[in-house]
Amino acid sequence: MRSLINILDFSPEELQQLIDVANDIIAHPGDYRERCRGKKLATLFFEPSTRTRLSFEAAMYELGGNVIGFSEAQSSSAAKGESVADTAKVISCYADIIAMRHPRDGAPLVAAMNASIPVINAGDGGHNHPTQTLADLLTIYREKGRFDRLTVGLCGDLKYGRTVHSLISALSRYPGVRFVLISPEELKLPSYVKKEVLAVHGIPYEQTEDLEAAMPALDILYMTRIQRERFPDPTEYERLKDSYILTPEKLKAAKEDLCILHPLPRVNEISVAVDKDPRACYFKQVLNGKYMRMALILRLLEGMEEAPAPEEEIVADLICDNPRCIVQTEQELPQAFRCTNRERKIFRCVYCESKRILKGE
Amino acid sequence: MRSLINILDFSPEELQQLIDVANDIIAHPGDYRERCRGKKLATLFFEPSTRTRLSFEAAMYELGGNVIGFSEAQSSSAAKGESVADTAKVISCYADIIAMRHPRDGAPLVAAMNASIPVINAGDGGHNHPTQTLADLLTIYREKGRFDRLTVGLCGDLKYGRTVHSLISALSRYPGVRFVLISPEELKLPSYVKKEVLAVHGIPYEQTEDLEAAMPALDILYMTRIQRERFPDPTEYERLKDSYILTPEKLKAAKEDLCILHPLPRVNEISVAVDKDPRACYFKQVLNGKYMRMALILRLLEGMEEAPAPEEEIVADLICDNPRCIVQTEQELPQAFRCTNRERKIFRCVYCESKRILKGE
Amino acid sequence: MRSLINILDFSPEELQQLIDVANDIIAHPGDYRERCRGKKLATLFFEPSTRTRLSFEAAMYELGGNVIGFSEAQSSSAAKGESVADTAKVISCYADIIAMRHPRDGAPLVAAMNASIPVINAGDGGHNHPTQTLADLLTIYREKGRFDRLTVGLCGDLKYGRTVHSLISALSRYPGVRFVLISPEELKLPSYVKKEVLAVHGIPYEQTEDLEAAMPALDILYMTRIQRERFPDPTEYERLKDSYILTPEKLKAAKEDLCILHPLPRVNEISVAVDKDPRACYFKQVLNGKYMRMALILRLLEGMEEAPAPEEEIVADLICDNPRCIVQTEQELPQAFRCTNRERKIFRCVYCESKRILKGE
Repeated sequence: MRSLINILDFSPEELQQLIDVANDIIAHPGDYRERCRGKKLATLFFEPSTRTRLSFEAAMYELGGNVIGFSEAQSSSAAKGESVADTAKVISCYADIIAMRHPRDGAPLVAAMNASIPVINAGDGGHNHPTQTLADLLTIYREKGRFDRLTVGLCGDLKYGRTVHSLISALSRYPGVRFVLISPEELKLPSYVKKEVLAVHGIPYEQTEDLEAAMPALDILYMTRIQRERFPDPTEYERLKDSYILTPEKLKAAKEDLCILHPLPRVNEISVAVDKDPRACYFKQVLNGKYMRMALILRLLEGMEEAPAPEEEIVADLICDNPRCIVQTEQELPQAFRCTNRERKIFRCVYCESKRILKGE
Repeated sequence: MRSLINILDFSPEELQQLIDVANDIIAHPGDYRERCRGKKLATLFFEPSTRTRLSFEAAMYELGGNVIGFSEAQSSSAAKGESVADTAKVISCYADIIAMRHPRDGAPLVAAMNASIPVINAGDGGHNHPTQTLADLLTIYREKGRFDRLTVGLCGDLKYGRTVHSLISALSRYPGVRFVLISPEELKLPSYVKKEVLAVHGIPYEQTEDLEAAMPALDILYMTRIQRERFPDPTEYERLKDSYILTPEKLKAAKEDLCILHPLPRVNEISVAVDKDPRACYFKQVLNGKYMRMALILRLLEGMEEAPAPEEEIVADLICDNPRCIVQTEQELPQAFRCTNRERKIFRCVYCESKRILKGE
Repeated sequence: MRSLINILDFSPEELQQLIDVANDIIAHPGDYRERCRGKKLATLFFEPSTRTRLSFEAAMYELGGNVIGFSEAQSSSAAKGESVADTAKVISCYADIIAMRHPRDGAPLVAAMNASIPVINAGDGGHNHPTQTLADLLTIYREKGRFDRLTVGLCGDLKYGRTVHSLISALSRYPGVRFVLISPEELKLPSYVKKEVLAVHGIPYEQTEDLEAAMPALDILYMTRIQRERFPDPTEYERLKDSYILTPEKLKAAKEDLCILHPLPRVNEISVAVDKDPRACYFKQVLNGKYMRMALILRLLEGMEEAPAPEEEIVADLICDNPRCIVQTEQELPQAFRCTNRERKIFRCVYCESKRILKGE
């Protein structure tokens, strides 16, 4: 049985298969209307996210299935102290597949380890949100026809934006990709992403604070929101914010076939006036997200018999100190680390991917 | 494509068609069980209203369709600052028709302007609630067989009761209708309704504080709740409240074929002892509301190709000062007014219908 | 028409029929997939209970029906002051069967008295939770093949645990049943259960504080949670809590065919290490709960024409003083008592079963 916890759980070939299915659904929706008849999706949203939840629900209904679930933790047994593991076991009695959103890093992985049905990570804290990346990838593929040889601008909050990190991970596996990282100093891409993703794959990138200067070279422009709360100094936020708002003016220097993406919801980081521009693809991205979720649900339900990825060697005598990690709250959940660099003795928590370096011998 | 934002969006002929369909559904429910197979209704309730929401959901299920949505704003992307326009565009990717409840006047109109699917106003602030009026109309029609030549008593809170205003607007288009407005001084029907609806259509009415005295003449008695909070002086509320509670005693003077309506939920303004009286039609009204919503959903889905009502001339250099209007909060939404009286230079905000009078020249 | 408010509403023969249907569903699920096509279940949860709600929803979907409802009171018309009776009448217009959870004792009974469709009590305050008992019974039957000649250990909070009281009531109707009541002094089984259930049926029982000592004799071990808040003295809680946590260690003295039950959610009263023990049946119990709810929904929908149980004589000149009883809040609901012991002049409130003893006469 397979689950989708991290976008890297799927190889480029497997992602291409999902994209092919999604394109077939778009071309022949009638062929899919009864594919999940009698099946149930459980949407377990321990924190609210309407857009993602409704996308999953629409996907399941368009496959002929049904949906049960909850949309916030206070309506759930979690409020009574139930562990994620128990919730996963209980829901396995009620549904055929789970989509889980949870405020703690690693919670969907714990669910997948305990459920007898496939689990889709619909966002875990600031950690992963792989189905957003699926939406991004289908949109790029449908607009550009390829993933290689693309100059991809990422603009806004590159520090905390998990959708940005996932997209970088996914695209770094294709040749000829180049990133332009556009952000204020305070919100630059973390160095571990540069070292462990970009450098490892030999992906070229440049960093800039200037969206307008970066514009002409871009094939893709991925916008994200800059939140006031991220700035220690509010005057700094005020000084910067307008330079990261996309307007028709700023688009004048862009390529004619630029593809503008945004994970939504937007507040004001893209002017409404841009919506009419044919290069604005963020509402197409919403639609594509639904089709990729349909393809994913089909894929995981069909893969029930399939063996999971081979288990890596696990080390248990380290302790994760990430306060947002599920290991801090889950009842009787053992610590677990995998080695990601033998030479430098780097280990990462399997739940939240926090790093520990083994000192001495 | 058509939407239903205000009961007056539909002509008397169109309302009659809806009533005919609803009556056919009641007579032949089996004919409708698959009519919306594969379609999805999105119930976007930015404030809770269980009865209305469940009525829409029951309606869609009885047509064979499915339902997605949310029941309060805190579970929605609106909590993250998404505009109504963006929500409408996103939901257009997931559903085939929207029913929206929103605390702000005009929000469903903004949704209809941006959605690519029909929008039904399921209540916007204190402004409109047209599907309640559809329930009222079908009940009157089924009980009385006509809309003309009726003496209609409206009792309780006539000042803030939006269902009362909508019903007056709808019934004022039929000949021979007469209103008896029964309310305490503090909660009388606003003068703009008298001037712009009753006077314009030449509809006779009388005002009284005395429910018992008004009773004998009535064909219809529409009860509403009087809320304590509406009274600046609580002793005044205490003095008055019992005279507006409908009891078997007060019904002794009523016609034998009186039809008693109430939009529900009731608290205590109709004694439970009245429920057994065959003239009590308020639970039939609930059932009729479901059938009219079924007819409406069918009508709007079938009218996808239809041209919307012709656009009126819009003036944009006035500013709406209604603090509850959607124009106060929606991102980049332009002001918009239509002229409702050229001679007296009266303009009304297209979103909330607040009045502005153009001074000088 | 029948409803299920209290587990004793169904005779042992009727319970056996439900169990037979549930077993047939497990053996031939395909035969049931369309049995409720076109029917709607309303899940009216005035307080949250995810597990119970999702079990009902999964049950209805596996029968081919649909579900409408709400998952907490603040999304419901109850927040506007609607009575339970009115809610039941309104929902009767929208659905075919109701599952109601409510914080007040007796609320589902009031719903059943007013609805025109069957009502299932999905938990009313600390009072009844009969579908949990259905899950317990099916699990015992599937594991043991009988209800008679069983030694049943009940461990933990026997004072407030309504699932414990219901299970005692249900099992006390079978011959050869024996209870071992395992709890701290503070949480012993209330004496009225001993007198009015155990003594009346001549069921032997013993009381102990020692789980380990009781273990070897048990055929069934029903675990419940001990909540810190139940103890006036927190040091007493600290002293006791570990002795009521089930561990592999404590299970060493148990029978090989012991059946361990728990109504879930658990917090830490059963160690996760016990989950792997083949005697751990609490996740099977979850699955069985779904099948019994399916059987129950079918049974009640098929019994629409059936006469309800004959009404008992009702006394109305007593007053219930239970502050949690629905009679304290429901609009115009009359007091109602039934005589449960003519000789000793004991009366019980029909809503919450609180006792009144008629003095003098």
